[in-house]
Amino acid sequence: MMCVMTKRTPTGAAVLQPQVTSAITEAVLDELALHGYGRLSMEAVAKRAEVGKSALYRRWPSKQDMVVAALAEFSVPLAEIPDTGSLRGDLLATVTAVHDWLSHPRFGTILPDLTAEAVRNPALAEAIAATIGEPRRELGAIALRRAVERRELPAYFDVEIALDLIAAPVYWRLSVRRAEIEPDYLERLVDHLMRALQC
Amino acid sequence: MMCVMTKRTPTGAAVLQPQVTSAITEAVLDELALHGYGRLSMEAVAKRAEVGKSALYRRWPSKQDMVVAALAEFSVPLAEIPDTGSLRGDLLATVTAVHDWLSHPRFGTILPDLTAEAVRNPALAEAIAATIGEPRRELGAIALRRAVERRELPAYFDVEIALDLIAAPVYWRLSVRRAEIEPDYLERLVDHLMRALQC
Repeated sequence: MMCVMTKRTPTGAAVLQPQVTSAITEAVLDELALHGYGRLSMEAVAKRAEVGKSALYRRWPSKQDMVVAALAEFSVPLAEIPDTGSLRGDLLATVTAVHDWLSHPRFGTILPDLTAEAVRNPALAEAIAATIGEPRRELGAIALRRAVERRELPAYFDVEIALDLIAAPVYWRLSVRRAEIEPDYLERLVDHLMRALQC
Repeated sequence: MMCVMTKRTPTGAAVLQPQVTSAITEAVLDELALHGYGRLSMEAVAKRAEVGKSALYRRWPSKQDMVVAALAEFSVPLAEIPDTGSLRGDLLATVTAVHDWLSHPRFGTILPDLTAEAVRNPALAEAIAATIGEPRRELGAIALRRAVERRELPAYFDVEIALDLIAAPVYWRLSVRRAEIEPDYLERLVDHLMRALQC
């Protein structure tokens, strides 16, 4: 009886079915890639996910909350880098993960759109930084702290510059310049990062 | 007489007054910052510049040509870095110039907008790369070649990676993450770049 009790949701709270949440998240990403943040509507997301609008509002109070949650669910786990045993291996895994994130068919469109939207919408910019940017940087810093433990990096390395140097070139090349990433580009980038981080 | 002849424009070509071109360029940048590329109209630019629409079409055949020309006129000269006498000095001047370019009140809005637009508009992406990106990289490479002549860099340094590493972190931090650039950030970045480029 106690066991059943603890599984019950609090009185008045709706039961949120995870498969419905997943369908909505997918619909949000599809709509963002097709139409951008500015033209995304709750109606279109509900229709694509084949749910009522109430299913959306039961989960998130606003379009911004819904979008940021969908993007975080897609983006944050991709920054979890397993321990490869060396700084070089971890850096290569990290820049490869950044590459795969940015070259994902939907996300390659979504992120530049959101970056432009965020210029005119500081609340959206803050929500993205808090929910996606900072958690991803926290995960990136874990790989660097492993290198400190292995004595591959000094204890007082410059974590702010390090994280910018790791993520930025792939974004700059893929999403801003829209230039080719040659097969050995990521390896060459890591060669440079290895020297840059030895402060 | 010969002198006067060589100054005449070819028969049938309109005389383009430079001060009109400047006024139009300024109007294009204002309209881009206010409304973005998608909603920019030739009408609004003509009205703001206080010229007729024919003054625009006499100079550029299309909105895309007009916008790319205005952006190039603003952006390319900013990448000309005078010889400071050392690689460190030239790198600091370069990242400072990138910082000033991206934190210019109008351009900080314009570039993220265009980056998003270019995802859905490959012709615009190509025109921006050819008219702004590549000339800016050419200018950036000059500073690096000076360092080779001074023997501060090896002759076969990786120019592609070097140029990405120099420009990308400032864009990533200012325009994508919308994070602070601390007073000593650019100096610390240059410390890292100096090590990274010693291949």
